[in-house]
Amino acid sequence: MIETPYLLFLGDAPDMLAAKVAIGIRDWRPENALGQIRLPGCGADLGLNDMTLAEAKAAGAKTLVIGVANRGGMISPAWKEVLIQALEMGFDLASGLHNLLRDEGDLVAAAQTFGGTLHDVRVPTVGYPIANGVNRTGKRCLAVGTDCSVGKMYTALAMDAVMQERGMKSTFRATGQTGILITGHGVPLDAVIADFMAGSIEYLTPDNEEDHWDMIEGQGSLFHISYSGVTMALVHGGQPDALILCHEPTREHMRGLPGFSLPSLEELRDTALPLARKSNPACQVVGISVNTQHLSEEDAVAYMAQVEDRMGLPTVDPYRHGAGRLVDALAAV
Amino acid sequence: MIETPYLLFLGDAPDMLAAKVAIGIRDWRPENALGQIRLPGCGADLGLNDMTLAEAKAAGAKTLVIGVANRGGMISPAWKEVLIQALEMGFDLASGLHNLLRDEGDLVAAAQTFGGTLHDVRVPTVGYPIANGVNRTGKRCLAVGTDCSVGKMYTALAMDAVMQERGMKSTFRATGQTGILITGHGVPLDAVIADFMAGSIEYLTPDNEEDHWDMIEGQGSLFHISYSGVTMALVHGGQPDALILCHEPTREHMRGLPGFSLPSLEELRDTALPLARKSNPACQVVGISVNTQHLSEEDAVAYMAQVEDRMGLPTVDPYRHGAGRLVDALAAV
Repeated sequence: MIETPYLLFLGDAPDMLAAKVAIGIRDWRPENALGQIRLPGCGADLGLNDMTLAEAKAAGAKTLVIGVANRGGMISPAWKEVLIQALEMGFDLASGLHNLLRDEGDLVAAAQTFGGTLHDVRVPTVGYPIANGVNRTGKRCLAVGTDCSVGKMYTALAMDAVMQERGMKSTFRATGQTGILITGHGVPLDAVIADFMAGSIEYLTPDNEEDHWDMIEGQGSLFHISYSGVTMALVHGGQPDALILCHEPTREHMRGLPGFSLPSLEELRDTALPLARKSNPACQVVGISVNTQHLSEEDAVAYMAQVEDRMGLPTVDPYRHGAGRLVDALAAV
Repeated sequence: MIETPYLLFLGDAPDMLAAKVAIGIRDWRPENALGQIRLPGCGADLGLNDMTLAEAKAAGAKTLVIGVANRGGMISPAWKEVLIQALEMGFDLASGLHNLLRDEGDLVAAAQTFGGTLHDVRVPTVGYPIANGVNRTGKRCLAVGTDCSVGKMYTALAMDAVMQERGMKSTFRATGQTGILITGHGVPLDAVIADFMAGSIEYLTPDNEEDHWDMIEGQGSLFHISYSGVTMALVHGGQPDALILCHEPTREHMRGLPGFSLPSLEELRDTALPLARKSNPACQVVGISVNTQHLSEEDAVAYMAQVEDRMGLPTVDPYRHGAGRLVDALAAV
């Protein structure tokens, strides 16, 4: 559990693309994003208040979140100065970087001296159980994709936001580092030991009120040979009542795997649903989320109409047209 | 890579069941099993020469292998005396126990002093790559099961042994601690970090001669919700040319999961084969291995005849009747 609200550290991010994590926090949990702090030469701007550490502290910020991807895998000396100062002032630090805060001796020393916590959200800190498959109360929705990086996290966050607006009971359940930084908690599934993957998802989505939905962030794809085991653990550990199929229609091959073509949405449905029904016999596919960022508005609308007709399921791009129809479908489960 | 041959440490094993690992080594790699060493009160006997450490050393033994499951998860003081003596005499130690040799300060100290190696085969020692799915030369066979513990390791070992007898090129590829201790190398798949599972299997089964078969030890089951992700990584990382379906016909529910019924062999075939073809479009199901230990000879023969007729695939219990027919089927691929 990372303490909120955050001050978002953008460092010397060359552009907005490098600040993807910070943008996610600002967009999905604006109440957590108290302000931004930038170094000279920073090319990113979230449109938040630029704050000094002291100003942010006075305004109640608890954690300095590294909201930027670093170059070359190094935590640079320029960053270190701010990070150590933050620890001295009583901030915790949180990072989803590959290179860990805890591997930096000066940060560890400062954290120990001043009582701060270093959150490396890529590293599991819980001893997860082995999955037991016992039926849990409450409802769960999982986004599964024809490929990696087709919009599964976005879909779950967008649906969760609509559900909150409508006064429905829902919780976004993060399974990757960006999601964990956005919400302050979750399971870094790709770093969990094989035997405990499904159990970590059971742990993440425990018993709940009957009308509460866990909106589980998907990972990988059952068809992506590098990560399919991770996806499988979500399908079985998540015990989903509802699946959302996610797709990016212009992709020419599986991400990072030239020569591997994407499955059809039908193939995804026919593979994922029987597997999901092993852990939850009542599971249904309720809708389709299409990432149409590489299509014109006209082409996107035509494509989704065709898919909706073919599959008989509400089909939307939640970024372009909102997630309302997917939530309608979920509410009908 | 664990150095062979071994001296098998049976400790104070109360019975043969506790010496399962040692029995596996004796049965499958007798050339690795130079002798046994037992403590007072040991109720297990492999029928090997009882040797002192000095006798085994003189006979060329390189590694003292803990071939017994310990009680209560402790490495007892009675064991310690022998283990430390072994290190002093220049042995390496190897163990598949849950509690690790490397967590015992006195063993670590002795290993450092005398230059021995502590092999905890449950712990990965390699930085495995992310799977890339690139087609590899040589052939691979994977045993997949309707459940855990239905005889997948036994099937692969038995087929490998027949292939060796026939002069075929094959290598048993261990993916669990018993298999690793038997052969001296492999991947402890259930302890690998999620993102690297499929890559670890690619690493384990690299390019090889066109007529060489890797006989990959299966793990878990695509239908076992606790471990299905591990199995999925084998199906995709293993890039199998051939699948063997494994089944135990008397089991009333999935192992450790009351209320979860086993899939049919047809369901296993129809689930595993399309998934395997994502990584190897040429994959075929070539045979069925039935664990008939809980059936009479008559019932076993009748059951297998019925399955063979129904599925149109050679169906055998390799323990009862040998793996020859499964190897025939593999040779025809």
